[in-house]
Amino acid sequence: MSDALNLRIPGPTPVPADILEAVAHPMVNHRGREFAALISRVAERLKDWFQTSNDVLILSASGTGGLESAVVSTLSPGDKVLSVSIGAFGERFAAIADTYGGDVIPLQYEWGQAARAEDVRQALGEHPDVKAVLVTHNETSTGVTNPLEEIARVVRSQDPGARSQEPSRGSGRTDGGRSEPTPLLLVDAVSSLGAIPFEADGWGLDVVVTGSQKGWMVPPGLAFVSMSERAWQAYEQAKMPRFYLDLGRHRDALPKGQTPWTPAMSIFFGLDAALERMAEEGAERIFTRHASMGRMVREGVKALGLELLCQDERFASDTVTAIKCPEGIEVSALRNAMEDDYNVVLAGGQGKLQGKIFRIGHLGLVEEEDIRETMAALEQTLAKLGWTAGVRS
Amino acid sequence: MSDALNLRIPGPTPVPADILEAVAHPMVNHRGREFAALISRVAERLKDWFQTSNDVLILSASGTGGLESAVVSTLSPGDKVLSVSIGAFGERFAAIADTYGGDVIPLQYEWGQAARAEDVRQALGEHPDVKAVLVTHNETSTGVTNPLEEIARVVRSQDPGARSQEPSRGSGRTDGGRSEPTPLLLVDAVSSLGAIPFEADGWGLDVVVTGSQKGWMVPPGLAFVSMSERAWQAYEQAKMPRFYLDLGRHRDALPKGQTPWTPAMSIFFGLDAALERMAEEGAERIFTRHASMGRMVREGVKALGLELLCQDERFASDTVTAIKCPEGIEVSALRNAMEDDYNVVLAGGQGKLQGKIFRIGHLGLVEEEDIRETMAALEQTLAKLGWTAGVRS
Repeated sequence: MSDALNLRIPGPTPVPADILEAVAHPMVNHRGREFAALISRVAERLKDWFQTSNDVLILSASGTGGLESAVVSTLSPGDKVLSVSIGAFGERFAAIADTYGGDVIPLQYEWGQAARAEDVRQALGEHPDVKAVLVTHNETSTGVTNPLEEIARVVRSQDPGARSQEPSRGSGRTDGGRSEPTPLLLVDAVSSLGAIPFEADGWGLDVVVTGSQKGWMVPPGLAFVSMSERAWQAYEQAKMPRFYLDLGRHRDALPKGQTPWTPAMSIFFGLDAALERMAEEGAERIFTRHASMGRMVREGVKALGLELLCQDERFASDTVTAIKCPEGIEVSALRNAMEDDYNVVLAGGQGKLQGKIFRIGHLGLVEEEDIRETMAALEQTLAKLGWTAGVRS
Repeated sequence: MSDALNLRIPGPTPVPADILEAVAHPMVNHRGREFAALISRVAERLKDWFQTSNDVLILSASGTGGLESAVVSTLSPGDKVLSVSIGAFGERFAAIADTYGGDVIPLQYEWGQAARAEDVRQALGEHPDVKAVLVTHNETSTGVTNPLEEIARVVRSQDPGARSQEPSRGSGRTDGGRSEPTPLLLVDAVSSLGAIPFEADGWGLDVVVTGSQKGWMVPPGLAFVSMSERAWQAYEQAKMPRFYLDLGRHRDALPKGQTPWTPAMSIFFGLDAALERMAEEGAERIFTRHASMGRMVREGVKALGLELLCQDERFASDTVTAIKCPEGIEVSALRNAMEDDYNVVLAGGQGKLQGKIFRIGHLGLVEEEDIRETMAALEQTLAKLGWTAGVRS
C-alpha cells in the first residue's frame, strides 16, 4: 500500500502536485493586469465545460454559497419553487429557497433513488404557477445521478398550453393551464460538472452551479455559476435580498477581469493550472475515465458481496458511490480502520443515512490504481472487522 | 531595486514563503480528525488577537461576506441602524444593512476625516430606537483609523436614562428617552485586526469582522467573526434571511472542529502557519512595527512634498496611507510606472476618490526596507513624470 493519502471522499478531491504548486503562487494585485488576465482566461475556459455561451461567474464561496446565489439572484419571496430532491443536497437547495421566503413544493424521493421526469411533469401540471424548479444533477449524499436532460426537457416544455397530456387543454386559463412563463431550471451540478457529460445550453438549463473542490482537482473555496438570458431577465425582477452572493455584481465586474469582492486568489491560481491540465486530457477522455472508474467501483463493491444504495445501474453516479454498511459493522470503525491501516479515506453517510452507508469518491484525480488500492483495503478491513461476504444474506 | 514584487496595496498583502508553502498542503478530509484539530487550533489562537473570550468563527468568504454575516445574524428588516461612515467601506457596510431591509440612519463624514464619538452620542440621542451601530475601525479607502474605543464607550453608555446630557432626562419615556436595550456595536476590523491594538471584550464590541488577506499575511478567502453574548441574544430574534453566512450554523459546527460548509482549506493551512509566525513575533512587537511603518510612510510622503488625505495625525492609519495625487499627475500613470519600473504596486482611490488619491499599504509582512524602496521609487517616478515638490503650492 502507498504511503500517500488515498483521499476517496467526494470532495475535496486530491489536488495534483503541479496544481498545489500553482495554489502557492505569491500574491499580486487582485485588481491588476496580471490577475485580470487570469480571471478572464479561467472564466472563458469554464464556458467549454459548462457547454454554454453565457458568462461563467466565479464566487469566493463553497458550493452551498453558489446554490444560494442561484436562488437569491432569480427569485422573490412568495415565489413558488418546485424542489426535486433525492438526498441531502436536494434538501439543502430547498432549505435555501425556504429561508429566503420561497414557497417550496417538495417532490421528494427515497434516498438512493433518482427523480423521474414524469413526476416533474405532473407536479408542474398541479402547480402551474411554479416560478423555478430546483434539481440536483448528481446527489453526492446518495451516489445517484438524476436524468437531468430528460427533466430539463419536461420543464422546458411547460409553455402556456403545451401540457398536451391534460384533457382540459385549450379550455382556457381557468383550468389551471400555464399562463406563467416557463419555469426557470436551477441546477446543482456541484459533483457532476467537469467529470461527466454536461450541456447547460443544449439541455436548456437556466442556472448552473458547481464548486472547485470536485471534478476540477482544485481546493475548495470557489463556486462557478452560469446564468441563461432568461435567468438574467428574472434577476431584474428578483426581490430576495442579496449582496455578497449577488450574481449581477459578479457579471458587472467580469468584463474588467475582476470580482466584486476580493477573490480567493490562491484557488484561482490553482484553477488556472487545473483547466490547463484538463484541456490536455480532453473532455471525452475525462468523461470516459470517470465512467470507467464508476463501473470499476460498483463491480468491485458487488464482488465483495456488498450492496449499493442505488440499485438502478442507469442512475448510478460515476463520481461517487454509496454502499450500505453491512450489518454488524460500524461505519466509523470501518472508516477509521481504512484510514489508520491503509491510508484510504472514505466518506460516511449524511443526514438520515449517517451510520448506514459509507461512500467512495471517484472524481477528479482518480486512476485505476487508486480504486484497486481502495478495494483491496476494503476487503481486508471488512475481514478484520469479522465480516464475511454473504453471511447476512 | 529588488526583483521581487513589493506589493504595497492594503490587501491582499504579501504572503511569506513559509506560509505559501503551508497553503500548498495536500487535501485531507475536511471533516476528519487532522483538519478538526487545525480548525480548533486556529479558532482558539484568533481569540487572543481579537482579545475576546467568545468564539471566533471562520467563514469561507471575503471580508464583505463577513460584514454581511454580522448584519444578517443580528438584525431584522425594519431595524433602525446607525451607520457611522468615513469612506467606501463604511458605505458598503451601510449598503448591506439597507439591502436586507435595515432602516439606515447615515452619519457620514468627509472622506479623510475620522468619526467623532460626540456625534455618535448625539445621533443616538436623536434616534433612541437604534438597534445597532455600524462602525469601520480602520477605513481602508481613506487611511483613517476611527477612535473605536471612544465610540464604543458612547454606544455602551446608551442605557435607559443614561444620556445625562439630555435636559429632559427623567421626565419619562415620551421624551424619547432610551427604552430600548443598548444598541449593538458591529465593527468592521478588516484592515486593523492583527496589526494595531484591538480589544473586542475590553472595548465592549458586539460583532467584530476581519479578513485573512490583511494583517494576517494569509491569502484572501476567509473572514473571521466574533460575537458577544448580547449579539447571540440578538441572533435568536434576528429575522433577516441567512444561510451560507449564518453565524449560528458556524457556531454550532465549531465544537466539532468543523464548518457548516466545505471550507477553503488551503487558506486554513496558511492561517495555521501565519498564526504560529505571529505568535513568535508577538503582539506587542507587531503593533510597534506597524506604528513605526505608518510613521515612516507619512514622514516619507511629506518629505517628498506630498499631501496626506488624512491631515489629523491622531487618526492616521498605521496600516494604509492615502496620498493626494499631485495636480498634473495621473494616478494610473504613477501606479503603472511604479510597477513597471520598480516592481512596487500601489493602490488607487476607491469610489469618489478614484483618480484623486493613491494608497500605500503597510500591514502584515512589511519591514523598513520595503518602505525605503517604495519611497525611493515614488520620488524617482514623480520626477520622471515631471513633478517637482512644492511647485503647485
